[in-house]
Amino acid sequence: MQKTREQILERLASEPATGPNLANDLGISRAAVWKHVEALRDSGFVIASDDDGYVLESVPEFGADAVEFGLDVPFEIEYHERIESTNARARELAGAGDENVVVLSDTQTGGRGRLDREWVSPSGGIWLSVLIRPTVPTFDAPVFTLAAAVATVQALEETGVDAGIKWPNDVLVGNRKVAGILTEMEGEADRVSWLVVGIGINANVDIGKLPTDRGVTSLEAETGPVDRRAITQRLLSAFYQLQQRPDDILTAWRTHAVTLGQRVRVTTPDGEVVGNAVDIEYPGVLLVETETGRERVTVGDCEHLRPAA
Amino acid sequence: MQKTREQILERLASEPATGPNLANDLGISRAAVWKHVEALRDSGFVIASDDDGYVLESVPEFGADAVEFGLDVPFEIEYHERIESTNARARELAGAGDENVVVLSDTQTGGRGRLDREWVSPSGGIWLSVLIRPTVPTFDAPVFTLAAAVATVQALEETGVDAGIKWPNDVLVGNRKVAGILTEMEGEADRVSWLVVGIGINANVDIGKLPTDRGVTSLEAETGPVDRRAITQRLLSAFYQLQQRPDDILTAWRTHAVTLGQRVRVTTPDGEVVGNAVDIEYPGVLLVETETGRERVTVGDCEHLRPAA
Repeated sequence: MQKTREQILERLASEPATGPNLANDLGISRAAVWKHVEALRDSGFVIASDDDGYVLESVPEFGADAVEFGLDVPFEIEYHERIESTNARARELAGAGDENVVVLSDTQTGGRGRLDREWVSPSGGIWLSVLIRPTVPTFDAPVFTLAAAVATVQALEETGVDAGIKWPNDVLVGNRKVAGILTEMEGEADRVSWLVVGIGINANVDIGKLPTDRGVTSLEAETGPVDRRAITQRLLSAFYQLQQRPDDILTAWRTHAVTLGQRVRVTTPDGEVVGNAVDIEYPGVLLVETETGRERVTVGDCEHLRPAA
Repeated sequence: MQKTREQILERLASEPATGPNLANDLGISRAAVWKHVEALRDSGFVIASDDDGYVLESVPEFGADAVEFGLDVPFEIEYHERIESTNARARELAGAGDENVVVLSDTQTGGRGRLDREWVSPSGGIWLSVLIRPTVPTFDAPVFTLAAAVATVQALEETGVDAGIKWPNDVLVGNRKVAGILTEMEGEADRVSWLVVGIGINANVDIGKLPTDRGVTSLEAETGPVDRRAITQRLLSAFYQLQQRPDDILTAWRTHAVTLGQRVRVTTPDGEVVGNAVDIEYPGVLLVETETGRERVTVGDCEHLRPAA
């Protein structure tokens, strides 16, 4: 968000202020103040004018300015009402050399999940992709996917729904998927060039618009309409902070994981692994105790089974 | 290489043939035969005309047609006399959707090694980048770097130099580096989108043009001028075949590794690991027996030390 606009919002968030006062404090003209207030109104901020001056009455539910306002971590938001894919757009920005940008959209028309599977993304969801350039070897990349899952669960805590992580990165409520993550990257062995962490949350989404045969749900269906702005801010804040201390990610992941302790069937490119999921190992390897010994699973589709009789 | 041109070369490689015979056998006009022969001559093939017809007298030492002629694996060669970086060009082709293309150059003006280090690439070297799209998770990507190192050593065997691999992917003669590998990739956890495997061999390179203070050598310095075409073909063939049977790569790597059994110091992003290199583990993890136990090293700069007293 434009710097001056942010300063005006911060002022108005604490108390009303007159145009002349704002102009004086920010060192700009009264005409400029008026122009910025108009721009904020265009973005959906409701700013009344009364005897005390400008009064901030409400912040829009979603959008770039709304999410940036009050965001405590240095991500820049690029908002779209509708886009084909936030990950595709973030990859484009990666190619142009950007970083610490979040592409956010209300609707995706061609959303994709892992393995190019369709990801239905109706209006009302939180569809976002975070573009970062961590200075780590590509070997470490999977841990950022785990961090995104942890950040998502932490962001959902305030809505009252009890979410958990299914290895590696599905976020479930009960047994139904409420959010998913798709991480893409470019790099060489010694270092990641860029990572695009795509996170899709079925937030205020009419469950009738989701493919419920695949075991999905939405926050709206679980708990009623949620504050997308608050969830997005909390998610970005948690993700950014986890990124700064990668050693804590696995610990946090274990806290929220519903897979550990379960009997699982993991379908990997090399075949099926069936057994008890006992732990996770850096950077995201699932340890499965099978009948023939302990297996380390790096990638696959995981299914929770009922305990063996 | 153009299909008809390849057929003409194949014919002439076994015996001389007249223009009319070639025209008849290939179902093209005599004028077309003449045009293709001229194009081949332009590429450096020496084709004489005598009473028996066209006679293939020699194949050029290097170039796209030269390397494709007799190449037994399905890579297409894009040749440059001079290019900034074959890896950069291969990434460009990756972006355009290509695969199984080899970018080959006589000179690189801005060659790069791991961690963006300069890679001096004078005329006479073999500077190439292979663009492939293997259907594997990104976790497996490092094994293709090992395969490239194995393929390079196998390709050098015929020159008579005794080359070995220093973990993870330097090719040494004695203690000096004769070839290096830089693998770049894009993908998501479950699958590689593309891999660019860059291989640089100091082949017919005047050692005076190399930074000898860094412990490098060239094939020319070790054994005299080498056949770059034969080395490139052998390398591509070996790499392609290893790619088809990834399970054999580690076994082949162990055969050629000079690091195993040595005392090493590995500088990793997390600090130094000093100990005895005892084995390699999929997809390229070095196992080092240190004073405090066994460490698994995924990435770093490895230095061979003298055995501890």
